[in-house]
Amino acid sequence: MKRRDFVTTSALGATAALAAVSSFPTPALSQNKRVLRLVTTWPKGFPGLGTGAQRFADRVTNATNGRLTVKLFAAGELVPPFESFNAVMSGTADMYHGADYYWVGKSKAYAFFTGVPMGLMADEQDAWINNHGGQELWDELGSEFGIKHLPCGNTGVQMGGWFNKEINSIDDMKGLKMRIPGLGGEVLNRIGASAISLPGGEIFAALQSGTIDATEWVGPYNDLAFGFYKVAKYYYWPGFHEPSATLGVGINKKVWDSLPKDDQHTFTNAALAENNFMYSEFNARNTDALNTLVNKHNVQLRRMPNEVLNEIGRASGEVVGEVGDIGGTEGKIYRSFIDFRKKAMYWTKLSTTAFSEARNLPFPYAK
Amino acid sequence: MKRRDFVTTSALGATAALAAVSSFPTPALSQNKRVLRLVTTWPKGFPGLGTGAQRFADRVTNATNGRLTVKLFAAGELVPPFESFNAVMSGTADMYHGADYYWVGKSKAYAFFTGVPMGLMADEQDAWINNHGGQELWDELGSEFGIKHLPCGNTGVQMGGWFNKEINSIDDMKGLKMRIPGLGGEVLNRIGASAISLPGGEIFAALQSGTIDATEWVGPYNDLAFGFYKVAKYYYWPGFHEPSATLGVGINKKVWDSLPKDDQHTFTNAALAENNFMYSEFNARNTDALNTLVNKHNVQLRRMPNEVLNEIGRASGEVVGEVGDIGGTEGKIYRSFIDFRKKAMYWTKLSTTAFSEARNLPFPYAK
Repeated sequence: MKRRDFVTTSALGATAALAAVSSFPTPALSQNKRVLRLVTTWPKGFPGLGTGAQRFADRVTNATNGRLTVKLFAAGELVPPFESFNAVMSGTADMYHGADYYWVGKSKAYAFFTGVPMGLMADEQDAWINNHGGQELWDELGSEFGIKHLPCGNTGVQMGGWFNKEINSIDDMKGLKMRIPGLGGEVLNRIGASAISLPGGEIFAALQSGTIDATEWVGPYNDLAFGFYKVAKYYYWPGFHEPSATLGVGINKKVWDSLPKDDQHTFTNAALAENNFMYSEFNARNTDALNTLVNKHNVQLRRMPNEVLNEIGRASGEVVGEVGDIGGTEGKIYRSFIDFRKKAMYWTKLSTTAFSEARNLPFPYAK
Repeated sequence: MKRRDFVTTSALGATAALAAVSSFPTPALSQNKRVLRLVTTWPKGFPGLGTGAQRFADRVTNATNGRLTVKLFAAGELVPPFESFNAVMSGTADMYHGADYYWVGKSKAYAFFTGVPMGLMADEQDAWINNHGGQELWDELGSEFGIKHLPCGNTGVQMGGWFNKEINSIDDMKGLKMRIPGLGGEVLNRIGASAISLPGGEIFAALQSGTIDATEWVGPYNDLAFGFYKVAKYYYWPGFHEPSATLGVGINKKVWDSLPKDDQHTFTNAALAENNFMYSEFNARNTDALNTLVNKHNVQLRRMPNEVLNEIGRASGEVVGEVGDIGGTEGKIYRSFIDFRKKAMYWTKLSTTAFSEARNLPFPYAK
């Protein structure tokens, strides 16, 4: 799911925002109470992402008994969703919640702080950001724009998508019209498919009418709500394009620096708490939704063939590698990410992957 | 790593504690500052676990600018480590940080809130606790002892352990003397091995002298520090006995109820933040340590054969299933855990496991 998904919301929002800006006051400092404006790239109450952003806001507000009140504005309410970064840079908003790969127009390196094709999974992404230099590099990048970054949620591994035909070889991908935005779309183009960008609200009809042959969205939880199972027969796994998507909070650096240390700690705790909670919510809801899709709606699950995954992997490496060619801050971030990916792949193979494979052996377990 | 690891510390601590109890004041309420005593089951500064408990304490203290000061006592400083639960029940301490499977003497169901053989991995454990009824059941169990529970850290998947011979079949496990405590030890006994409990400080010598043939400890990060590679040739993966170990904070219920809502939120944010951070620290450090073990110390990595894993799985199901037979609260927790495990296995197979397998295909990736 990428920035163009919300083009409709965005267009609506642009007008609303112009009206709205003048009516929202600058942060109130009276009575020791401060209101901080959080803009988000998500529609109001969007399951998982929008609700997670609201929980983050509430975590700060509740922990300070409203002394710091974080007021959330859904996409378009204060500024159009993809103006969120600019709004925080300029001080129109105090902070945003979004996916930092939306800001690749500012720096292509922002992609690494959300996730890249065939990149890192959620626990690896967290390890890199929290404990292997990622946060420091994120802050270094952010300092170029006057923004302090914090990780604040994750979707986990996304699904490969909904297809109206079976994919048995790389030839079946040639000419396939698939709705898949961003770097994932670029990867699809390089293996002979045709990537198409469509806002979320238009995907269902396009798939139904045959305008597109396939689409990715998020995972079982969000995909079930969209009802794609009614118009596409096959649900493919695994997703290669977003092995995880870290959501982030970006705070105006002057606002951040104006906060006393204790309030900075409150923000950091709230962001990391939601980083944990949102990912676990996606896993819990995906688990239930997958069950419903298969057992109630008879969705046909298919594993993407190795031949296709291998070609996708090669093209992913090409696309991601081009960021490294830029050099400078981008090159430094790229190098840190790629080095960690190599080591993380080894540990993941021996730990979570190996355990999961062992647990799938045919032994009976409890009752 | 289980409760007997710290028997030595515990024995020392018992005496120290008697002297210490009288010298520590009850929570100070003067000047609007409150000191809360956090006892832990970890030696001072124990990497990952002890340092994580300290970070949790600091998260609360720093976010409240010391208005709530959480003072950490390492194992034995205030009470012996395995008296932590009793100390919190009685009010001698305000809260503990530990692994709740240490409290199976209170209720066998506590095992599920840390982890059980062939059970859930960290992200699944989080999903169950945060979003699939686990937290509510944990609190229901805790209410029987006057304790409020919160998740606060995870080791992730542990390694299978260090062996002085290769394991090629189930016969190679018969009669094997392995240092492995708790439910994992019970599983080993049921497949014909001989489980032995030894405190952490005695394992190295026992393995060197041949008193034991094998040992588990935690994972590459902690195992490298212990130097097991000097006395055992083979390092086996994956660990079956602790696919993850959730660490928990248990707070005296009267103390919890005495906290204003905003301070309860501060505690919850701090615990969940550390739940995220500690797991990512283990993953980052394990990643580096595995690299060092293999490339610097020439450790021989071996995958446990499927025949052995399958037998271990069957015995794990037997041991875990016996908790379900108890009925009551234990039976209810068991049922919730087992039901979620079934669904989570399916989602994990299609998401993280499948993605990891796809990423291990031979395609070149970046440079």
